[in-house]
Amino acid sequence: MSKRLRDTSGKSPPFEFVAGNGLIDRRVLLGRGVVFAGALGAGGAGALTGAAAEPLVDAPWSLAVGSAIPPYQTPSRFEKNVVRTVDNPNNEPRNSRARTPHQLLKGIITPNGLHFTICHGGVPDIDPEQHRLVIHGLVKRPLEFTLEALERYPMVSRVGFVECGGNSAPLFSNVALQANVQALHGLASCSEWTGVLLSTLLEETGIDPKAKWMIAEGADSPHLSRSVPLAKGLDDAMIAMYQNGERIQPGQGYPMRLWLPGYEGNMNVKFLRRVQVTDQPGMTYFESKIYTDPLPDGKDTQFYFVQEVKSFITSPSHGLTLKEPGIYEITGIAYSGTGRIAKVLVSADGGKSWAEAALQEPRLPKAFTRFSMPWRWDGGPAVLQSRAWDEGGNMQPTREQFVALRGQTTKPASVLGFAGHHFNAITSWGVDPKGEVKHVYA
Amino acid sequence: MSKRLRDTSGKSPPFEFVAGNGLIDRRVLLGRGVVFAGALGAGGAGALTGAAAEPLVDAPWSLAVGSAIPPYQTPSRFEKNVVRTVDNPNNEPRNSRARTPHQLLKGIITPNGLHFTICHGGVPDIDPEQHRLVIHGLVKRPLEFTLEALERYPMVSRVGFVECGGNSAPLFSNVALQANVQALHGLASCSEWTGVLLSTLLEETGIDPKAKWMIAEGADSPHLSRSVPLAKGLDDAMIAMYQNGERIQPGQGYPMRLWLPGYEGNMNVKFLRRVQVTDQPGMTYFESKIYTDPLPDGKDTQFYFVQEVKSFITSPSHGLTLKEPGIYEITGIAYSGTGRIAKVLVSADGGKSWAEAALQEPRLPKAFTRFSMPWRWDGGPAVLQSRAWDEGGNMQPTREQFVALRGQTTKPASVLGFAGHHFNAITSWGVDPKGEVKHVYA
Repeated sequence: MSKRLRDTSGKSPPFEFVAGNGLIDRRVLLGRGVVFAGALGAGGAGALTGAAAEPLVDAPWSLAVGSAIPPYQTPSRFEKNVVRTVDNPNNEPRNSRARTPHQLLKGIITPNGLHFTICHGGVPDIDPEQHRLVIHGLVKRPLEFTLEALERYPMVSRVGFVECGGNSAPLFSNVALQANVQALHGLASCSEWTGVLLSTLLEETGIDPKAKWMIAEGADSPHLSRSVPLAKGLDDAMIAMYQNGERIQPGQGYPMRLWLPGYEGNMNVKFLRRVQVTDQPGMTYFESKIYTDPLPDGKDTQFYFVQEVKSFITSPSHGLTLKEPGIYEITGIAYSGTGRIAKVLVSADGGKSWAEAALQEPRLPKAFTRFSMPWRWDGGPAVLQSRAWDEGGNMQPTREQFVALRGQTTKPASVLGFAGHHFNAITSWGVDPKGEVKHVYA
Repeated sequence: MSKRLRDTSGKSPPFEFVAGNGLIDRRVLLGRGVVFAGALGAGGAGALTGAAAEPLVDAPWSLAVGSAIPPYQTPSRFEKNVVRTVDNPNNEPRNSRARTPHQLLKGIITPNGLHFTICHGGVPDIDPEQHRLVIHGLVKRPLEFTLEALERYPMVSRVGFVECGGNSAPLFSNVALQANVQALHGLASCSEWTGVLLSTLLEETGIDPKAKWMIAEGADSPHLSRSVPLAKGLDDAMIAMYQNGERIQPGQGYPMRLWLPGYEGNMNVKFLRRVQVTDQPGMTYFESKIYTDPLPDGKDTQFYFVQEVKSFITSPSHGLTLKEPGIYEITGIAYSGTGRIAKVLVSADGGKSWAEAALQEPRLPKAFTRFSMPWRWDGGPAVLQSRAWDEGGNMQPTREQFVALRGQTTKPASVLGFAGHHFNAITSWGVDPKGEVKHVYA
């Protein structure tokens, strides 16, 4: 990676490349006059004078009074396409998913309106005054908490991701399905969560020495329940009541959800109504029937909790066409259920050469980390990839490595559902000479 | 602060107090069984058994299918009071303000729907395809940027606050006005902003050696403009296009605003359409007529840019009544336009004794920092205060210190407007024996 290549195309100022097919050192890029902007004529410019500029030509919105400020602000009407894709708009009696449009977002915070969700019985309309959280089972003193009671405990705030175990399931297909980053990886989002640590409440109830697990159950009609090792409950598990400052929205589990930083999305039980402390797992539907992972040898992995180190490029990505050869920013997100992201490498030649991406601060444990890398597209074919490492030394696998371990399927239709979980291998975006970006296996 | 007091009331387990009138060491609080919750009877508890619990009594939402997941999620109908207060709902031809309801929020991120804003000609409806940013004046090459062009530059993301210079102006009154934290301090909010550093674009245009200032102008009908030292433009100034992940909302300057971390809100020009580089300030309306600060000696301070170190308690606060004596969490936000918050002290006895609050991570420069402190209210009178220090060693002043320096006014009606700016002294909340919380001067 340290080998510096020299641009000899003569088409642009002499860049220093940090890897093949146009990856550029960020420090070299800046100050090179990489102009994407239009030059101004003499009129209206006031160039090289200190005098007041001539007025700009006014657009219609510069000539009229705007609208009233609303009590709750919403996005511009010009951003109407920046929404989640919903797969059950008529609320038929089955699962409903809403996917985050990562190809249109920046930064690490997912706004509440666009956080992914999956509901198994629609979004319940819970009255917070009537909702209760019960902690019982192998405890010394079973307790029932109102929202008002929880508000009086010490609260903590942490930025972190939630990712569905089935996120990226389409990549188990043996052919690269043509879909954008929202369809492929949209079941992961990142917020600032605020609530009471479950460990604080377990100090209140006391714990029987025989206790090893806990079973969390939602108040929605399917009463979704999952077993969680008690050790996680005593570590960083949170009864989350706020998301990005405001009360958790209905699709996120209003008025409270279990948040298990770094653990499979489904375990972060929404609409949480009870935690039963037990000496064994509950073997619930979602951990015995659904979130078990078949392996190529015919066996299954069960209780596979941690979302492992992963990254994907959000731009350029499938469906975002490059207009012309020139300089672009490659950017994406990386995260790990183990801890902080340590490093992200980017390739523009399908993995033949790699360069280290810039990581945006703050780099928080079990949270999205935004990475970026300048790239000069010369108009030829390119395959863009990212690969992440976490602070635990875990490396995101190639697709080849992943398939050898976990298998793939020849049933492309079903893999759009839940044919597999915990896919965390490299995603590849192929750029063709027209600038169109496709999902490819490389 | 290090003196430990012993609770001898006999009403509760023996706490260790860290300051007068009930401030408790957080480490001592936890594990003491400070139960706010209701104990469960034998029925439904399954206590001390590993067996599956008896079913809980189902609420109505546990027995019916919920609603469809919408493409853009919004808050629960039970949170309809968690909105900004707007002071010009009929859009009369004057300023419009919308204030953040800090008393109902937690964490450090303000959700986009609740970020404060002030508009001087309503909220314009700008077509991003037609909007242009011009950088001209004392530059080598004046340039015009489309949004698409800006998207190709390296972007950065930073979490930080924006605060109106007139935030907290009611505290210039010589009597403590009875209003809540939203009315008093609601013109400050904090987001993750993403965009292109202005320094990147000034590298593109080049700068004439005579340049010392720049004048930023908005595209809304008042064409609000402010002068900014060029040094700030070359430091951390950002052309912000995204807020908490999504495109900036209309009230925040869609499609782009100038963000000057730590500087007076009004300078963070929304709907930014040009930056003119100059050798002198423009002496615009907002810097010559409005944002000048009268001093007791009859002189005025001008070009007072930095929002200085400040904190206030958001809960308990005016209007949030304490139900009964017992343990509560005191929490609030602190921030400084200079850098990180170093320390926050809290008092429950009107400043006679102080204890150090817990600061939530991450503590980011020029961003909100959430602080908290457990407190046992014994049912007697209390005066809650917070006081912050930043990493530059700056200390938030007492109100007495502040008034000596900056003055106060006997015109309580007018101070609800802009009688003064940059108020950053201590706020005091008085708790009476009924648990009602009032704004007091102490």
